[in-house]
Amino acid sequence: MHHASDILLSLFIVFVAAQIGGEIAQRLKLPGVVGEIAAGCIIGPSLLGWIVPEQTATGTPLDVLAEIGVVLLLFSVGLETRLEDLKKVGTTAMLVGVLGVLVPFALGSLWAHGSGFDWNKSLFVAAAFVATSAGITARVLQELGALQRTESKVILGAAVIDDILAMLLLGVVTSLQGGEGFDLVHLLVVLGGAVGFIAVIGWGGSRVMRWNSTWLERPASPHSPLMIVLALCLGLAYASTLVGLAAIIGAFLAGMIASETRQQHTLEQQTQPLLALLTPFFFVITGSKIDLHQLASGETLLSLLLVTAIAIVSKLLGGFVGALSLGKRSATVVGFGMVPRGEVGVVIASLGLSAGVFSDRIYAIIVAMSLLTAMVTPPVLAWLLRRQGDDGAEAKPG
Amino acid sequence: MHHASDILLSLFIVFVAAQIGGEIAQRLKLPGVVGEIAAGCIIGPSLLGWIVPEQTATGTPLDVLAEIGVVLLLFSVGLETRLEDLKKVGTTAMLVGVLGVLVPFALGSLWAHGSGFDWNKSLFVAAAFVATSAGITARVLQELGALQRTESKVILGAAVIDDILAMLLLGVVTSLQGGEGFDLVHLLVVLGGAVGFIAVIGWGGSRVMRWNSTWLERPASPHSPLMIVLALCLGLAYASTLVGLAAIIGAFLAGMIASETRQQHTLEQQTQPLLALLTPFFFVITGSKIDLHQLASGETLLSLLLVTAIAIVSKLLGGFVGALSLGKRSATVVGFGMVPRGEVGVVIASLGLSAGVFSDRIYAIIVAMSLLTAMVTPPVLAWLLRRQGDDGAEAKPG
Repeated sequence: MHHASDILLSLFIVFVAAQIGGEIAQRLKLPGVVGEIAAGCIIGPSLLGWIVPEQTATGTPLDVLAEIGVVLLLFSVGLETRLEDLKKVGTTAMLVGVLGVLVPFALGSLWAHGSGFDWNKSLFVAAAFVATSAGITARVLQELGALQRTESKVILGAAVIDDILAMLLLGVVTSLQGGEGFDLVHLLVVLGGAVGFIAVIGWGGSRVMRWNSTWLERPASPHSPLMIVLALCLGLAYASTLVGLAAIIGAFLAGMIASETRQQHTLEQQTQPLLALLTPFFFVITGSKIDLHQLASGETLLSLLLVTAIAIVSKLLGGFVGALSLGKRSATVVGFGMVPRGEVGVVIASLGLSAGVFSDRIYAIIVAMSLLTAMVTPPVLAWLLRRQGDDGAEAKPG
Repeated sequence: MHHASDILLSLFIVFVAAQIGGEIAQRLKLPGVVGEIAAGCIIGPSLLGWIVPEQTATGTPLDVLAEIGVVLLLFSVGLETRLEDLKKVGTTAMLVGVLGVLVPFALGSLWAHGSGFDWNKSLFVAAAFVATSAGITARVLQELGALQRTESKVILGAAVIDDILAMLLLGVVTSLQGGEGFDLVHLLVVLGGAVGFIAVIGWGGSRVMRWNSTWLERPASPHSPLMIVLALCLGLAYASTLVGLAAIIGAFLAGMIASETRQQHTLEQQTQPLLALLTPFFFVITGSKIDLHQLASGETLLSLLLVTAIAIVSKLLGGFVGALSLGKRSATVVGFGMVPRGEVGVVIASLGLSAGVFSDRIYAIIVAMSLLTAMVTPPVLAWLLRRQGDDGAEAKPG
């Protein structure tokens, strides 16, 4: 009856490491998530080797728990977000999303071409500079109780737009690798699918829930509202992958829809234990993928610092300019909020590696850059938000 | 960014199937768990094939979620159980545990020998008749709000003893297969380890928590009590596999320890959403392992019915006689509570298959018997408990 005992040990190690890392980070006045990622790096193959995540595959139990963790995290962030609030910052979020994709893509292409890639491949490399990981920022905003601030709404709206554009961009650069050029009609269909999905689910779902949330509380039903919205969360997370979007976008929409019901407060409370158990897996596993050995050579380390600097500055710049209507301080918060690439960058780098576009060295650099941006952002964002106090709440939406 | 979308679909299917199955079962006045197991059978390879569990391996993501689900279930059952209450029924639980192992082992050996196995192999086959799966019964008792009844305490105490004895028995019959005989000293060491673990954790842990649970509520700590007891739950679940016991025994002890703290009520509430999300995986995955194709031939079906009848009657008899001091009605409840073999029987059958003791046909029969007992028990147990009303609560513990 020893079955599954190894995985239980991994679960225990990851969970305890997250708690210890989180506690240390908070004593150092850093967001807990920094400690969880650092704990992952320490118990991962780089240092202690207590857990060994797959670099490219995503089907191991720990990866699946990490995925469920980040899906639930974005679901809970959605629960604290109203469609109305997102609409108010729509223009700003759109600008932040578009500029936050274009600037990193342009600077990333220039760097890649400068490093010796031909233009076709440079565009693929640049795609890994683009996509923001909403999970890291969402966690920091939630930890600091800042989800109701205008900057947070802009960041969340922009993250949705960012994900759509990044998906399209990845489609284009992938088809360019075959030398076949790209099919504009196909691209428009993909775009239409993603936008249509978000519009139907977000707008339609919110209306249905607002008008008709009493069916969730039928006393005859043995299902608590929680069961129904969890099913909605898993279903929309899967559905959003069908239209090419990240699972967390669907989970965020599910939470946003559920926030329109009268059970919103109960649901928020019931989601807390789920987050407590499962989100640590996402952050620890993310941290465990940081491979310090790859960065041992001085030359690689220099390249990494340059790439990370480009990734941070380009995203910050795009977000800052896009959000200038909120004032400079808020625009800085928004810009930094878009910086983390996290697991999304890792996924694109894996695609590049398996497509034969990336060398092992570029792969290691892009992965490390993605994870470094995830490490660097939380303390800066926390510092900016704390310094700013509640000023941002008064800023006018665009 | 399509990563992990297949597994998200499986999660969605399993979760929704569990809800629908549970709802239908409850409308038929059956325990919800029956519907969840049946839903697993329907979406599994036998019929729809929407999910395909591994029969022998236990490392797939769905299996791990199932394992976490049953670990949390027994943790929450532990939260509703005080060590003091278990002590009061100690003698009865011991009798039920011992007789509930001996009678099925004896009858199982006779059947196996009668089917043509030599005595050595017959003892291994009989070991698969022995071990009770506490998860199924615990869920039914929890669903019916019957965990505070004397019969429930006896069943839980007996399940712990059952697990110790089954582990020892499996050790003995495994070493017999090599023809080397068994090492009594080794056996006593294993027994000492298991009993010592339970005594130290259960008795010592309860005392520590009762005297000193204020440290859980230090305001300076960023960890909620939930995080600490979840770490305890995972840690003890793993630790109990180290001394040869099932992970759920450790989880049950962790819950029982945590029930001594002043946060017991809060913890119970916080555990509910975790159970809601994760226990369906255990029951649906259990159901999905029922392989109806294997049972298509009339002869196999007859053997299965005979084996299942032996498994049910032998366990019922052992439990009934052991619990007779509670009166006949309560003794029947206890006896039926010990009947489900569930995933424990499946694990032993897998061991027998890989050890070359079981043929494919015997393996299929033992697996089907284990799962059939898990299907049959909940409705009978629910009927017995409802018929009995609160009579059992007055019965004297042995």
